[in-house]
Amino acid sequence: MDDEVRRAARAVDGARLWRRLMAMAEIGATPAGGVNRQALSIEDRAARRRLVEWAWERGYDAAQDGAANLFVHRPGSEPQLPPVLVGSHLDSQPTGGRFDGAFGVLAAFEVLEALDDAGVATRRAVEAVAWTNEEGSRFSPGAMGSAVFARRMTLGEILPVTDWDGVPLADALRDTLADLPEVPMRDRGLVPAAFLETHIEQGPRLEAEGIPVGVVTGIQGISNIHVEVIGAEAHAGTTPRRLRRDALKTAAAMVLALEDAFADGDDTVRFTVGRFDVTPSSPNTVPGHVRFTIDFRHPDPATIERLTGRIEPICQGLAGACEVRVHRKRDVPPTRFDEGTVDLLRESAKGLGIAHMDMFSGAGHDAMHLSAICPTAMVFTPCKDGISHNEAESAKPEDLAAGTRVLAAAACALAQR
Amino acid sequence: MDDEVRRAARAVDGARLWRRLMAMAEIGATPAGGVNRQALSIEDRAARRRLVEWAWERGYDAAQDGAANLFVHRPGSEPQLPPVLVGSHLDSQPTGGRFDGAFGVLAAFEVLEALDDAGVATRRAVEAVAWTNEEGSRFSPGAMGSAVFARRMTLGEILPVTDWDGVPLADALRDTLADLPEVPMRDRGLVPAAFLETHIEQGPRLEAEGIPVGVVTGIQGISNIHVEVIGAEAHAGTTPRRLRRDALKTAAAMVLALEDAFADGDDTVRFTVGRFDVTPSSPNTVPGHVRFTIDFRHPDPATIERLTGRIEPICQGLAGACEVRVHRKRDVPPTRFDEGTVDLLRESAKGLGIAHMDMFSGAGHDAMHLSAICPTAMVFTPCKDGISHNEAESAKPEDLAAGTRVLAAAACALAQR
Repeated sequence: MDDEVRRAARAVDGARLWRRLMAMAEIGATPAGGVNRQALSIEDRAARRRLVEWAWERGYDAAQDGAANLFVHRPGSEPQLPPVLVGSHLDSQPTGGRFDGAFGVLAAFEVLEALDDAGVATRRAVEAVAWTNEEGSRFSPGAMGSAVFARRMTLGEILPVTDWDGVPLADALRDTLADLPEVPMRDRGLVPAAFLETHIEQGPRLEAEGIPVGVVTGIQGISNIHVEVIGAEAHAGTTPRRLRRDALKTAAAMVLALEDAFADGDDTVRFTVGRFDVTPSSPNTVPGHVRFTIDFRHPDPATIERLTGRIEPICQGLAGACEVRVHRKRDVPPTRFDEGTVDLLRESAKGLGIAHMDMFSGAGHDAMHLSAICPTAMVFTPCKDGISHNEAESAKPEDLAAGTRVLAAAACALAQR
Repeated sequence: MDDEVRRAARAVDGARLWRRLMAMAEIGATPAGGVNRQALSIEDRAARRRLVEWAWERGYDAAQDGAANLFVHRPGSEPQLPPVLVGSHLDSQPTGGRFDGAFGVLAAFEVLEALDDAGVATRRAVEAVAWTNEEGSRFSPGAMGSAVFARRMTLGEILPVTDWDGVPLADALRDTLADLPEVPMRDRGLVPAAFLETHIEQGPRLEAEGIPVGVVTGIQGISNIHVEVIGAEAHAGTTPRRLRRDALKTAAAMVLALEDAFADGDDTVRFTVGRFDVTPSSPNTVPGHVRFTIDFRHPDPATIERLTGRIEPICQGLAGACEVRVHRKRDVPPTRFDEGTVDLLRESAKGLGIAHMDMFSGAGHDAMHLSAICPTAMVFTPCKDGISHNEAESAKPEDLAAGTRVLAAAACALAQR
């Protein structure tokens, strides 16, 4: 391992990283100890401002693009070379944890500071980036900012998206950009030299194995489907069962039938009905309308295709007196990360004497889009009981520091190429 | 039939009643042609003000009590005698229709005007009343104003009730009373001589039989139960099925099992899961919490008891890894109306040559509470396809006029006793 690389990794300050994480977790903090910092909300904007203020305190420039992706820039000695990007996201689930996303952004910021503290000048610039709307819980789909950056979606495609209250993304985006008028806009033509992301595992394996670093070789594919069940509202006290078109009863039968159809012996399928909205949701009215979401993931594209194809026939078969509409919203194919970059992460961990293992990601991450335009890989760190998307999400400072050291070593090596 | 009674019934002006109904339906009007005028909302308050203004235009006094029940007073010649009350409610379901409740209040107002137009002086005062929060969709339970009036509940019991946004009823009640500062308060010691209510049937029978008037002999009993399912939020992409505690999947199984358990051969049971709230309701988070309501009605108290007792064991049996809490909220026993008053309605319809039939009410009404303190009965009129608690609710002017004529005749006869 190169001496500069080793010095950069050793300069990672776990206590400083932890302090910043806890300061960031104050923004949108929930009484149960998590955060509610949904994409482009007041809280998300406050988090962006905090990151920019920390950047300015260390003398870094910040920039944002039209999708509100936010970049903190540490210059390289050869400005004409494309930069190395490191980062993740600052937005959270409505009842999210303190580490999902924020750890990856603040670890990236720590990499910049470690390079400075170690006195390492790199050929390429290194940038810490916060991608917009990774969670997708307010505006669907998730990982929107990185998808636009990687030209897998266009701004024109995402602007008309509305949240479940009808607020257009275009408005929320405009207000978010306007909240940081001092941060210059830059266009999205950039193709990075590489992208690295670190994230808590959001699963139980690293903790169970007692290993602080997972080297992620790929991400399973996702299929998102919305199902709408249209019945008829009716009076609960007067309408006989034979005349009812009960959208809730019908939708409940669909959920159970789909759960059965997607159950696999080795428990690899990830099938979730997460959002389930009933209208009018009044105790004494038969529900006339239900809308629910399906989030289905699997490492194998053929399995995704085959099982997704079963959803509509199953729902139509249970529709009875109701009308059913199945909307296939968006698929993300499985991702295989760049073998060279994955190797660099393995070598970095090995060189620093940090125990590590290969793994496949169950969750989607911004890295899946970046991998379409540049060499990309990820580092996972353990989280308590594998719990994430939950206010109880928890991680150990020493594990986060270990992952960030591997990240710093790899970023430094890439920035010297 | 007494001549004054006949004159009062004939003075009922169906066109005027219809005009007032349409004017009332403008308050809280929804794009789909219904109304959203939930109890103690801005819209409900506007409806109360409109009724008071109409009262003043005709020279009637208005009064309200501590539960915001609103009374329009037509004096009798013997002020020391208890009045005859006629009325229903002005609040609606969130996606309610134009006739449910409003018809009963405006028919009562039409009775007062018809008595005047016919030049009939009555011994007893006749009052048109709008009871507070009959629907119970915002603040549970329904028929709250009439329950307090009839001393089946106390003000102290209802004041702490909150809506699903946490607004206390005490605040909404205070604001509603304050919105009509010119309307004097009166205390709730009054015991009426009788109570009459007219309402659309909210079921299909009268329309199917081609009969404009139903004489209601009683109301089926209601049992309200809340079920809470507590699981654990988890990441949709990473959490294996065997580790999930999915509150939505568990609650869906309960809904289907309960629907099965409550299905009866002759379709007399009314079993409805109407409200179903999922938390956090995010597409990529396994739901950690579901809360749903059960509205169960039957004419036979023993059947209510027996089937209600099955709810908790069924839910506990399906709980799996989740925790389940079953709250029995409130029961209303079946009501049998006063035979003499029911007879008076039959005789009134017969004397006016209006076709009529006896029926039992599937829905709860304010009359069920009034029947505990004074002779009470109800008149039903047809509604299109039996649809109610629905923006598509519809009724014919001639049917509403026929029902109001029977009401006017009976109210006049009672007020002369």
